[in-house]
Amino acid sequence: MLHVISVGEAVALAKSVSSPVTETEILQLSLLAGRVTAKPLFSPDAVPAFSRSTMDGYAVKAETTYGASDASPIPLTLVGEVAMGQGTSLSLSDGDCAKIPTGGMLPANADAVVPVEYTDLFSADEVLVCKSVSPLENVTRKGDDVQKNGLLFSSFTRLTPAKIGVLAAAGIDKVEVLRRPKVGVLSTGNEVVPVESPLLPGQVRDVNAHLVSALLASYGCESVPYGILPDDPDVLLSVLRTAAAETDMVLLSGGSSAGEKDLSAFAIGTLGEVLAHGIAMKPGKPTLIGKIGSTPVFGLPGHPAACCFVTETVVKPAVEVLLHTSLPARTRAAKIADNISSNHGREEFVCVRLEGDKAVPVYGKSGVVSTLAAADGYIVVGRDTEGLLSGAEVTVRLF
Amino acid sequence: MLHVISVGEAVALAKSVSSPVTETEILQLSLLAGRVTAKPLFSPDAVPAFSRSTMDGYAVKAETTYGASDASPIPLTLVGEVAMGQGTSLSLSDGDCAKIPTGGMLPANADAVVPVEYTDLFSADEVLVCKSVSPLENVTRKGDDVQKNGLLFSSFTRLTPAKIGVLAAAGIDKVEVLRRPKVGVLSTGNEVVPVESPLLPGQVRDVNAHLVSALLASYGCESVPYGILPDDPDVLLSVLRTAAAETDMVLLSGGSSAGEKDLSAFAIGTLGEVLAHGIAMKPGKPTLIGKIGSTPVFGLPGHPAACCFVTETVVKPAVEVLLHTSLPARTRAAKIADNISSNHGREEFVCVRLEGDKAVPVYGKSGVVSTLAAADGYIVVGRDTEGLLSGAEVTVRLF
Repeated sequence: MLHVISVGEAVALAKSVSSPVTETEILQLSLLAGRVTAKPLFSPDAVPAFSRSTMDGYAVKAETTYGASDASPIPLTLVGEVAMGQGTSLSLSDGDCAKIPTGGMLPANADAVVPVEYTDLFSADEVLVCKSVSPLENVTRKGDDVQKNGLLFSSFTRLTPAKIGVLAAAGIDKVEVLRRPKVGVLSTGNEVVPVESPLLPGQVRDVNAHLVSALLASYGCESVPYGILPDDPDVLLSVLRTAAAETDMVLLSGGSSAGEKDLSAFAIGTLGEVLAHGIAMKPGKPTLIGKIGSTPVFGLPGHPAACCFVTETVVKPAVEVLLHTSLPARTRAAKIADNISSNHGREEFVCVRLEGDKAVPVYGKSGVVSTLAAADGYIVVGRDTEGLLSGAEVTVRLF
Repeated sequence: MLHVISVGEAVALAKSVSSPVTETEILQLSLLAGRVTAKPLFSPDAVPAFSRSTMDGYAVKAETTYGASDASPIPLTLVGEVAMGQGTSLSLSDGDCAKIPTGGMLPANADAVVPVEYTDLFSADEVLVCKSVSPLENVTRKGDDVQKNGLLFSSFTRLTPAKIGVLAAAGIDKVEVLRRPKVGVLSTGNEVVPVESPLLPGQVRDVNAHLVSALLASYGCESVPYGILPDDPDVLLSVLRTAAAETDMVLLSGGSSAGEKDLSAFAIGTLGEVLAHGIAMKPGKPTLIGKIGSTPVFGLPGHPAACCFVTETVVKPAVEVLLHTSLPARTRAAKIADNISSNHGREEFVCVRLEGDKAVPVYGKSGVVSTLAAADGYIVVGRDTEGLLSGAEVTVRLF
């Protein structure tokens, strides 16, 4: 008989039985958000690709402006104009300047730009400069931002929208990324029927497969449905063997009766190994962690809120190992609106509703579904704490 | 000439020019995550659909157990067993009990369950009960969680994974939701070319369309690409007119030179109205807010980091109006690892990298792309603050 382990031990165990996805695929830029790079990415071009002005004004050789002021402007010869989006064949000699827009390409020999507000167009070919500029002032040089072949991202970087912008800037329109982890989802229990089925006496709907699949999608995983299985050891062994062979992780959901729980443990133990049976969390205790071959297998509690908490707390860190990166947490600071009594030896998960900066505990009467319906997220009350007093700062993990 | 407005005024204006999407669509459960309900949702069935046991044990009439203890157990007649997932025709008389698993359907006349650990199976048809139970103890009654026709969600509820579980529990496999907001994305500038094009001298890649489209996808919007337009008033007017007519919001991206900025303002003003030109934020000042017919139009800054900040800060609240709901913020508390100097009259947005609980400012030399590549998020330094001292608590908005 395995003893109950702490949440910290469960997370460490869940991570230790998981290993990173190694298969990759190459995707277009528009499909990359949220994906994880398989290799370091280098910039094929310098950014910017040419030295450019950061102001509307006149490109100059900086030294020809030294000493210029409103009282004693320096006249420069206007030799031409740089057009946006085009190269320029202009080259400045001492005493020359060229009109240039923000983002325009700097002419040869120019090393600075005088902003238009510090100039006067004296005649068609003469500009008065009323302020000196230093070399490189109002200029971004080729490669200043990113050098050609410069490292943009190391391997296993999760591509956020901002990083998509970086790829676009560097001219990278395809990237090799880890394929999405495949996670097998199966439900067990003679009493469990599909959501769309009419409910006969004694039956319940398959809640957790849908809940877990939605969570997995938010983690960037592909969930692979293996259906609802009866409490039959042969059927469970057969489907579980297939699921473990075909996927990167298996979530076995449901089974609220002692017989069903034993059956899940039996099946995992027969095909592989059960490494933990019970986590010191409330709700969420009846959780199995095991391994079949190299595939991590989790037996999740039947209670939908518990299933949600265990998936977020224990399965998500294992998914982070599959993805070789960390996933963002969605949290919000709030003040708890009620006293939460102490608990001993296990972490307690409490659903809360947000009202302004207050987190109001949602306690349902047998309230699994109604509690989840009303809650915006949950808080975790640590083991062996003295509880929380109303008004205490808490971190709400958002649903 | 319109004056520069504060970030708060810009957000209020962006919201005031936006109105909720009214068209709806009906989607299957597996496609509902992140979508927004169009109507209140009521539970077609009671949850649970039958009175059930919450423990493995024996269903009883509670009053027949009163006075039971280890020292003086009460014998009950075992009249049968409830099977998981099936109805039961059993009905208890005084002195009867029935074996029942967790989740099993309560027999007629039973009103409580004695957990198996407080019983002894004395013979094939006799059970000794060693502990009394109260009526409803270890029982969830039909409808205790959700009543038939009870309200699950009001209109305009965003469906999180937990709420997907609620729908499954209630047997709802299709929901009418707001259609995704359509947001037109167009880039302007003679110098702007597609990411996949080779770069000629003076040209830059279309960064912001990709950045903005990835952000819009994260908000649950469908971005509609209208391409890259040259600095030609007739072309811009024609495409902008079409985009405003076909979508719920238009984002005009790019235009870093004064001429391009003026052209965007001219086009919006010709077809509709420019309501703000300039926001007191750094970077992000050159932002336009306007309206063409009933369609909000934003002219975003060309600088990719500024474009990202304005989209997150000003456009996202407008998307929340389109969706009639709030979108979750992804934030993390951290301590700033460096002094941030004060700024006067405008909000400053500073990219940061996370190192443990520290937020390290990322300052690139002209570092738009390299800064975004290295940053995990950004902080906002309020107007007219005295700056931040190293170690100060900050909220990092995650990319």
